[in-house]
Amino acid sequence: MAKNEKTLHDPKIQFGLRLIELRKKRGWSQEQLSLESGLARSYLGGVERGQRNIALVNICKLAETLGLQPSELLTFD
Amino acid sequence: MAKNEKTLHDPKIQFGLRLIELRKKRGWSQEQLSLESGLARSYLGGVERGQRNIALVNICKLAETLGLQPSELLTFD
Repeated sequence: MAKNEKTLHDPKIQFGLRLIELRKKRGWSQEQLSLESGLARSYLGGVERGQRNIALVNICKLAETLGLQPSELLTFD
Repeated sequence: MAKNEKTLHDPKIQFGLRLIELRKKRGWSQEQLSLESGLARSYLGGVERGQRNIALVNICKLAETLGLQPSELLTFD
């Protein structure tokens, strides 16, 4: 599997890209998402860069903050 | 919010119940799911009891093992 293919299949990277997409759809900055969710901006930055293995409770917190179902955050193309 | 209502809204418990449902749909024991996924049976027991805050990579590993999309594991009634 080529490097970029491998990267693309990394759930952390897929989740990060999905979170960016959903946050931007909402018109929010990382700062705004941090404010609304109560999660630190630096932590969110790491999640969006695909560097953090985010856990269930924070996935559901982000979903609730964005007004979405948790499953929508794990819907990868 | 009454205790059981609070319990039911706990993502860890919701995920545990969902995992049991999907595992049983597949006709697998916890042992079988452990064997197939490579995740320890004791860990899976804790996840199913709603005692573990499972992270993204393991959610995706379980989804792949069960032949499902990751989002299906986070589809709570």
